[in-house]
Amino acid sequence: MTGTSTALLTDHYELTMVAAALADGTASRQCVFETFARRLPNGRRYGVVGGTGRVIDAISRFTFGDEELATLSGVLDPATVEWLADYRFSGDVDGYAEGELYFPGSPLFTVRGTFAEAVVLETLVLSILNHDSAIVSAGARMASAANGRPIIEMGGRRTHEEAAVAAARAAYLAGFATTSNLEAGRRYGIPTGGTSAHAFTLLHDSEHAAFTAQVNAVGPDTTLLVDTYDITSGIETAIEVAGTSLGAIRIDSGDVGVLARQARAQLDALGARNTRIVVSGDLDEYAIAALRAEPVDAYGVGTSLVTGSGSPTAGMVYKLVEVDGRPVAKRSSHKESKAGRKAALRRYKPTGTALEEVVYVVGAQVPAGPHDRQLQVPLMRGGQPVDDLPTLEESRQRVREALVSLPWEGLKLSHGEPAISTVNVEK
Amino acid sequence: MTGTSTALLTDHYELTMVAAALADGTASRQCVFETFARRLPNGRRYGVVGGTGRVIDAISRFTFGDEELATLSGVLDPATVEWLADYRFSGDVDGYAEGELYFPGSPLFTVRGTFAEAVVLETLVLSILNHDSAIVSAGARMASAANGRPIIEMGGRRTHEEAAVAAARAAYLAGFATTSNLEAGRRYGIPTGGTSAHAFTLLHDSEHAAFTAQVNAVGPDTTLLVDTYDITSGIETAIEVAGTSLGAIRIDSGDVGVLARQARAQLDALGARNTRIVVSGDLDEYAIAALRAEPVDAYGVGTSLVTGSGSPTAGMVYKLVEVDGRPVAKRSSHKESKAGRKAALRRYKPTGTALEEVVYVVGAQVPAGPHDRQLQVPLMRGGQPVDDLPTLEESRQRVREALVSLPWEGLKLSHGEPAISTVNVEK
Repeated sequence: MTGTSTALLTDHYELTMVAAALADGTASRQCVFETFARRLPNGRRYGVVGGTGRVIDAISRFTFGDEELATLSGVLDPATVEWLADYRFSGDVDGYAEGELYFPGSPLFTVRGTFAEAVVLETLVLSILNHDSAIVSAGARMASAANGRPIIEMGGRRTHEEAAVAAARAAYLAGFATTSNLEAGRRYGIPTGGTSAHAFTLLHDSEHAAFTAQVNAVGPDTTLLVDTYDITSGIETAIEVAGTSLGAIRIDSGDVGVLARQARAQLDALGARNTRIVVSGDLDEYAIAALRAEPVDAYGVGTSLVTGSGSPTAGMVYKLVEVDGRPVAKRSSHKESKAGRKAALRRYKPTGTALEEVVYVVGAQVPAGPHDRQLQVPLMRGGQPVDDLPTLEESRQRVREALVSLPWEGLKLSHGEPAISTVNVEK
Repeated sequence: MTGTSTALLTDHYELTMVAAALADGTASRQCVFETFARRLPNGRRYGVVGGTGRVIDAISRFTFGDEELATLSGVLDPATVEWLADYRFSGDVDGYAEGELYFPGSPLFTVRGTFAEAVVLETLVLSILNHDSAIVSAGARMASAANGRPIIEMGGRRTHEEAAVAAARAAYLAGFATTSNLEAGRRYGIPTGGTSAHAFTLLHDSEHAAFTAQVNAVGPDTTLLVDTYDITSGIETAIEVAGTSLGAIRIDSGDVGVLARQARAQLDALGARNTRIVVSGDLDEYAIAALRAEPVDAYGVGTSLVTGSGSPTAGMVYKLVEVDGRPVAKRSSHKESKAGRKAALRRYKPTGTALEEVVYVVGAQVPAGPHDRQLQVPLMRGGQPVDDLPTLEESRQRVREALVSLPWEGLKLSHGEPAISTVNVEK
């Protein structure tokens, strides 16, 4: 999406607030906005930050061209339109690296700048972080449940066509092996793959003809979908056509655990001991975990991944916490937040297991532990992305390492408390 | 998004199936693919078709340019790449008009063409219809619960940044009054609006200063957010600053029903009898219904709308049902579908209340009722959109009329059976 303006992917009120603040001189006050989640959704034990790289790219493209300005000229006064025409974010951003774990209150994306330049980014920052973090958080639970077996992301058809591309990226970040989404392959270099659909078998005069066509086109190291008619005869036909070097079979319906066992026995009896078994069909992290003891070689996951497995948004908010050095916070009942710019560190045991998250107001006295790690890193300086932003591969590696650092209860799929508790330290 | 190719917003396997079918000569078989939902999600009583207009536009942009072809040349054989270079959909589409109600099995988007030209559209068609229909179906329940009171869509920050634009469109289709999303305003002409955020109040030295700035910038017919500090003094300050002609106040937290009652009494006592009360903050259709007896003038809805209120995808599938005139269907256990090209009609009572959905194989004997309405209409012919596609306003009107046609149990928010049953007629 390089080159496309992201400036209208925002809420009307962000710009009317800028207009009002420009008019009364408060627009240039130095502000700090913090992005955090008040809680983890649905009794989850941890969240995974996703989308940071996409946000930084989107901020670079948050500029108002002629088309955007023409749209706004009916809504805003000329002085505001002129200000927007010159807009480029020039502030600083610190936050959790993409792929880092987060917990309630973790300050995972902190924007510093004038009120006007920072407030206009609210909607865009939240859209990306809320979507991508929801997907990678769900995906990490699935990857963890799969326990090393590869997962293929194939949910694009169950979500918005552009959200699908971001979801494929988030799934890869979470540890999925490949995606079916071609645009995710092009845009992010994620390995793509695919098998075939029931339609391909139905198109042909027989399953034999369909399998022959597929093997002729892409070779015997392919995955044949064997459950269009009868699975047992489907497998027989598959090996007849492709030989015992067939790459894999896929089962997409029915009780896939039982069917995988039967398929494994049949494949072995036919001499196709290296032919893998891929299962798909409404799998989520619980179904994946339940299949651990079955002879499954890979999972195909669609709907549950792209919908965040019951939690399609991460519920993050973007709150003003400091104005010209003065801590501020909403004070009426409910939806309160804590005033003042914060940073965070994570405490670890000598073994490397995470102990607690310490979120502290910058300047507060925090007793140093022997195994602390500061969590915020510079992401943007003077409106520019920092030089050493991690690649998607590096962020993917970070997720893998972070999951290993959790206490064992932290990887439980059941509802419960966060894997580590958050300690808040005020000044 | 006019002009941007949608061709890579698809699954890898769609193109490898084309490659295999081109190689064995089956690619040119005449096929019928039907899009339908096996069930309504979560005990819903009806679904609303959303996204039809977006799909038709996206199909027109499903063409492979140099960039797309370069991406694919590593994956596909040269003959397939050449075929894709010339690809333009040239088939026919019939389906339910956008805004039409649907039920389990309703054939809501039927694509006819060669196997190759129709199969490659699967992922894109499903992405758009699954997303947009999920949102408009949830939104219609909210609009129905609001019972004529306006709803403002403000959920963009809780979903993917492009899904947000489509969600705003779907919300408007469902009967929402306005959206906060500026790009939805530009792209679809939907009225946009907004109030202000807690950050705007916190930015200022006092609530009085913040309200003054907002009223000076946009006039007294604005909406002042009164719950940053103390609601009672917030309302007092609001009227002090804006006068009794203040447009509205917004309450975004706490027990909004109780607070709305107190606010109404206070506003009336201050003489601001025409100042409206807007409530927001985690509202869904159930919360909206529960506020019916309260003096609320408008609702702001975010998260629950853009996440489909618990059902973020409509679960639609795109199934091959006919090849060269021969009915086909998957036959193994689970996820079966019915062979043969289908059409549908809806039966009504003389009063105009819907009675049942009749889904029939084209050519089957269907006894005619006195108040039947055929549901499929032409959407594309020879690859081109038909001339008289409805506008967004017309589709919005269709939703409104359709909801009135449901039996009263059909508008219940509780879980249950579909509002009308589906009768399947085979040949």
